[in-house]
Amino acid sequence: MPISKGSQVFPRAEYLRRLAAVKEKMTQRNVDAIVVTEHAHITYLTGSTARSYNRRGLVVLARQEQPTFILRWMDVPAAFQETFLDRDKVVGYSDEFMLDPSKDGYDAVIDFLLDAGLAKDGIGLEIGNLTADAVEKFKGRLPESRIVNFSDVITSIRTIKSDLELAVMREAAAITDAGILRAAEVISPGMREPDAIAEIVGTLVRGANGKAGTWIAAPFLCASPRIGTAHVTWSDDVLRQGSQINLEIAGVRHGYTVPICRTYSIGKPSDRLLRIHDAQLAGLEAGLSLVRAGAIIGDVAQAIHRATERLGFKKRSRPGYGIGIDWTERTLSLQEGNLSVLKPNMTFHMHLGSWVEDDFGYVISESIRVTESGVETLTKAPRQLFVL
Amino acid sequence: MPISKGSQVFPRAEYLRRLAAVKEKMTQRNVDAIVVTEHAHITYLTGSTARSYNRRGLVVLARQEQPTFILRWMDVPAAFQETFLDRDKVVGYSDEFMLDPSKDGYDAVIDFLLDAGLAKDGIGLEIGNLTADAVEKFKGRLPESRIVNFSDVITSIRTIKSDLELAVMREAAAITDAGILRAAEVISPGMREPDAIAEIVGTLVRGANGKAGTWIAAPFLCASPRIGTAHVTWSDDVLRQGSQINLEIAGVRHGYTVPICRTYSIGKPSDRLLRIHDAQLAGLEAGLSLVRAGAIIGDVAQAIHRATERLGFKKRSRPGYGIGIDWTERTLSLQEGNLSVLKPNMTFHMHLGSWVEDDFGYVISESIRVTESGVETLTKAPRQLFVL
Repeated sequence: MPISKGSQVFPRAEYLRRLAAVKEKMTQRNVDAIVVTEHAHITYLTGSTARSYNRRGLVVLARQEQPTFILRWMDVPAAFQETFLDRDKVVGYSDEFMLDPSKDGYDAVIDFLLDAGLAKDGIGLEIGNLTADAVEKFKGRLPESRIVNFSDVITSIRTIKSDLELAVMREAAAITDAGILRAAEVISPGMREPDAIAEIVGTLVRGANGKAGTWIAAPFLCASPRIGTAHVTWSDDVLRQGSQINLEIAGVRHGYTVPICRTYSIGKPSDRLLRIHDAQLAGLEAGLSLVRAGAIIGDVAQAIHRATERLGFKKRSRPGYGIGIDWTERTLSLQEGNLSVLKPNMTFHMHLGSWVEDDFGYVISESIRVTESGVETLTKAPRQLFVL
Repeated sequence: MPISKGSQVFPRAEYLRRLAAVKEKMTQRNVDAIVVTEHAHITYLTGSTARSYNRRGLVVLARQEQPTFILRWMDVPAAFQETFLDRDKVVGYSDEFMLDPSKDGYDAVIDFLLDAGLAKDGIGLEIGNLTADAVEKFKGRLPESRIVNFSDVITSIRTIKSDLELAVMREAAAITDAGILRAAEVISPGMREPDAIAEIVGTLVRGANGKAGTWIAAPFLCASPRIGTAHVTWSDDVLRQGSQINLEIAGVRHGYTVPICRTYSIGKPSDRLLRIHDAQLAGLEAGLSLVRAGAIIGDVAQAIHRATERLGFKKRSRPGYGIGIDWTERTLSLQEGNLSVLKPNMTFHMHLGSWVEDDFGYVISESIRVTESGVETLTKAPRQLFVL
């Protein structure tokens, strides 16, 4: 029996609006079809969030309203159920494409392009996201096509959020905040790090306000003696009186990921910790005070760096990046020298994390939205060093 | 202050043994250096499990005992803390390589190769794991080097596990089993899917026998009406009397990932569900009975397919794949026609999942080890259809 559509996150009109923006770029670049392969882009254009471990492509044809999603046969029911696509726009390929070492899912995509009569047309590929062998395969099997690099085109369109997207991001932000507060509730001396993580992740999945987390973004918990490390998850160790915990977590709704960092101290914080908190908080607030539509991104970054330096700490990494589906939007970088202009409804993770020495660091951050007149802070957890 | 080494998962000798096997392949292929970029391979050769979102490379030189790990400066303390590498073998690159759009971490790796005097030597790259632009960068900046594709070399070495690795996989398997039993305990009519996931994931993180889960592999929970879908995580829906739940989870210890599938029925299972359980179980047991060192992989797969077909169900997908660090070892495929021979201490996920129709499917599986005389089943949860 056919499976029914699931409840859709966004109305069909929202996806068609996004596709129209993509097609405008296709017209500008004179391509008749694009093959979308980046997971976040597929989510953006269809609502699909299922991950596949097999090659697949979403083919957008300039002349058709709906794209066609080509993927392994077993992933077809989920792709139909999750997305707004009609049943005939979800096309499965057989395991022949997996078991024959000379073939893979991109051959099924190329077969579709050839069947659609596009052998001599302009075709956009997300080359930055494709392995060398995949690019060779497309070029080899479409020798008369004009291949155009479409790598960051959809990423750039995604940077401006619609009101519907912002509503989902606020739901995710509430989940993020709940995780931060849960950590403050449960962390205590003698607790194993994994037990803290289990409580935090449980909260991130259960969600907030009746809206569940729909994915688990791996949390980072760097506790003493690892407070100078970045991008590690957690260890088998036990938290102790005097431990510092640098926590970075994110709530996720339907792909939209809203991160936050907060630092916790079990017992009285050291003077050094209090001083870096003051410096990083000053940087964060200096940045927030400058955010508004029309501001230069590099100026915001510069204000953040200067404010932390005035209080004696040099932050070495950029103070933020664009956020949306799957955490980072790589085309938006909050960094000095970036002359791009902030636009309404861009969203950022303004990240005041500093890894000062091998054995010392501190993190605080907010996820924010740019408004016409200033800033909306999506995350609302207390902006403090949590002393437990 | 420098950070201290963390407790090491494996003794130094174990990493040197793995490196020796890699260097033997380097000698066979006449390369002086390889650049390891696949996350699982870096874990295998050093013990590092931290994920970085910036390009990095582990350079193995034929002439040096230890490899050199080149990565973003903020990831250096974790790389030193987690691994057996000496401090001078962990080399950070500055954010200059991130902020300048013409550069990235691979430029730092190439600078290292050039400084090491390798401009005219044979260099192995994991090309299957590199984007087209990365391969171009290596070839462009090392025009006189002989670039050799080293894509699946380390993957193949990884397929035979040492006793030390198997001990860690057994710890992970115990966590997996605990997750399956926790699901049987908590799932009940009226429960939201995310609340079930929170309990299951909490167990996977807290671990078993005092050994915590060290990473969260995203669980798949496909419940009615989505029991014909694959690779979706969970929905906002509520589980009901009569719901079927197809669950695929994995415990993880230090990267080693041991998956399992079990199916649950809230209330009396349908005849169709009982029949497919019998068929898939027969397939699983037929497969297990043939596993032993020296058996042909394709024969095992064929026995599985024939056993399920005798009971009226045709399984369309391959019945398994190699497992180890980061879930799948792509060079081992349990599929018909595969003429490779099973070797002692290969490990597989023997996967009897069937997606029969858009609205019906069933899953049962075991993670196993090949022994000289037969099979060790790593996962030990009851091999049953759980009726709740």
